[in-house]
Amino acid sequence: MQTTENVDANIEGTGTAVRPKLKQSIIDCDIHHSTGMNVIKPYFPRQYRELIETYGSAMPGGMHFNGGDRGRMADSFPPGGGPAGSDLQFMREHHLDPYNVEYAILTGSGMGMQGTSNYDYAAAYCTAVNEYTIEHWLANDSRLRGSVVIPKQDPQLAAQEIDRIGGRSDIAQVLVQNGARYPYGNRFYYPIYEACVRHNLPFTIHVGDEGTGINAPTTGAGYVTHYIESRAARPQVMMAHLASFIFEGVFERFPTLKIVLQEAGVFWIVPYLWRMDQDWKALRMQTPWVKKKPSEYFRSNVRVTTQPIEEMPNREIFDQMMDALGAEETMMFCSDYPHWDFDSPLQAIPRLEPQLADKVYYYNAADLYGLPPRKAEAGREEA
Amino acid sequence: MQTTENVDANIEGTGTAVRPKLKQSIIDCDIHHSTGMNVIKPYFPRQYRELIETYGSAMPGGMHFNGGDRGRMADSFPPGGGPAGSDLQFMREHHLDPYNVEYAILTGSGMGMQGTSNYDYAAAYCTAVNEYTIEHWLANDSRLRGSVVIPKQDPQLAAQEIDRIGGRSDIAQVLVQNGARYPYGNRFYYPIYEACVRHNLPFTIHVGDEGTGINAPTTGAGYVTHYIESRAARPQVMMAHLASFIFEGVFERFPTLKIVLQEAGVFWIVPYLWRMDQDWKALRMQTPWVKKKPSEYFRSNVRVTTQPIEEMPNREIFDQMMDALGAEETMMFCSDYPHWDFDSPLQAIPRLEPQLADKVYYYNAADLYGLPPRKAEAGREEA
Repeated sequence: MQTTENVDANIEGTGTAVRPKLKQSIIDCDIHHSTGMNVIKPYFPRQYRELIETYGSAMPGGMHFNGGDRGRMADSFPPGGGPAGSDLQFMREHHLDPYNVEYAILTGSGMGMQGTSNYDYAAAYCTAVNEYTIEHWLANDSRLRGSVVIPKQDPQLAAQEIDRIGGRSDIAQVLVQNGARYPYGNRFYYPIYEACVRHNLPFTIHVGDEGTGINAPTTGAGYVTHYIESRAARPQVMMAHLASFIFEGVFERFPTLKIVLQEAGVFWIVPYLWRMDQDWKALRMQTPWVKKKPSEYFRSNVRVTTQPIEEMPNREIFDQMMDALGAEETMMFCSDYPHWDFDSPLQAIPRLEPQLADKVYYYNAADLYGLPPRKAEAGREEA
Repeated sequence: MQTTENVDANIEGTGTAVRPKLKQSIIDCDIHHSTGMNVIKPYFPRQYRELIETYGSAMPGGMHFNGGDRGRMADSFPPGGGPAGSDLQFMREHHLDPYNVEYAILTGSGMGMQGTSNYDYAAAYCTAVNEYTIEHWLANDSRLRGSVVIPKQDPQLAAQEIDRIGGRSDIAQVLVQNGARYPYGNRFYYPIYEACVRHNLPFTIHVGDEGTGINAPTTGAGYVTHYIESRAARPQVMMAHLASFIFEGVFERFPTLKIVLQEAGVFWIVPYLWRMDQDWKALRMQTPWVKKKPSEYFRSNVRVTTQPIEEMPNREIFDQMMDALGAEETMMFCSDYPHWDFDSPLQAIPRLEPQLADKVYYYNAADLYGLPPRKAEAGREEA
């Protein structure tokens, strides 16, 4: 029951002012005391205290603990402070110069805005990231190329963002997260591919945000429990996108569209192409717009970056898998700097024959992104 | 407005009796005339008419057109009528006898009941299928072994069904669909594994019902469009289950539990194990109960059946992949009879060395299912 006295007591006394005490005592059945991680952390067992200190609280929205040091290489934090990857000068000294990186495609850190339910906020967020990247990074080092992060929830708004900056010579690609509500071959996304084709920009799918926000659950069997399972789910989702592009006929509708598969591993592609080629032979009457074998579309329209490349039991099977992948055309090196599972160009990949190495470490990417030939062919030195 | 006259008119005149006509005319804004497939089919373009005639209407619940003739081999329909696989005598003549099948594991046709929201109906449905299988099939041919189909939505009821018939000597395994609400390593399912271990029965995951009923959407990127994409999704979902079993520690908690992966293809497993072994090395502090490399659990606790085995570009990579899979321990032949993509034991798999062939075509399954050695070792003839 609400009396005039109670109402007055509620209205007055904001801030730190002393409230007049009620004459009659009450029972209040819902008071939110603060139980933030800063106060409850000591009550966890040590195992979780350490995970939380290293990776954050891993609650829905960013549900899994990460690896390394806050997800980064321990030595990648700039000496002047700030997050890993935040200081261009340090990045030059730590990565670009010593590894002789002639061009680098920037992919930023986080595409969570592509999985939020607020479409217009997502669009504003993408524009903010893109403008920051242009102003603070692309303008300050001629080796860098940028990605257009797009609000993929709304393909029309996404196409507008691509049209806004996609014609710039320092923009190399359009970038989306792997997590999605619909597989990327779905016609829902066609306005995005029209814009990619208008500006001759590859459409790059980078792992991340599977099972978060408005995206579908992490796997076809629902949500996973552990970070390592969420990593195992990444190729699964990428497989869904690849099949979707092929069987929805996207590469027939947009023959010049190139897509890039990033950070879901590499060699799952090989038996998956065998499988899809086989099924296409048996079932192509149901999808008559798919004119070529799936593996042919893969070679002509798809590229895959190397990190995290799988370690194999022997050199023979590595060579066989590289050949079956068509690595000479389809594979492009990347490091994932500064993430904890960084692949060094000196160590990650077994030594390749010089011609194949040229393709994987330089020319496949140069062809895709329209970059010039190596400045000093003669000076090439490999590990 | 409801008058006495209207109410009377509603109550009377059921069935075909002539209803007295209302004095005042009305407008009725929702009348369901019948638009069944039988009447609307002629209005479809020929392409869809043919798909519908062959595979049914492919609406939610069984959303994709199938392959072959109603999903079956054209020559597998019994001459006396009835669905393919419905006539034991014809199956003997058509498959069991000519292919010299010493034992056959029956898997039935359809596990849709495992994805329905009505748990008790699902349990009754499973019991009905299991009783029919025992009475009409297992009792009539000593070569046949049965699967316990379980209401996996309710693990306690599922365990009861396993306990009810799992001790029979003609029951070989517990069988579930690939589609799921939670990956099968989730603790939700533990009562099922306790029952499997009690009766020493493998837990077999057979493709099917991904993205239907109360199961999660088909892929980690949501629902797919075409049947061929739904087939490409099968290994994805199987990957989720395999990672879940390993990283949830199911094989440490139930060391004698064996699982079988059925009809999602075979060789996706190889790069997937490379990937999981690599991540396990880097991240096992987060899942310290996972004592061994994922590939070691695979060899000790997982078996994979062959159909539909991938076709490969050359013999060398086939041998490498078989070796990397540990096929000598892990692979078991199956035909998928009478489905349209049936694998003949004469044609599906490249010729194997005799020792490996013995394992793949007989002894790996005999070991798993507790079946006796070949009756006539000397009489073995391979294609």
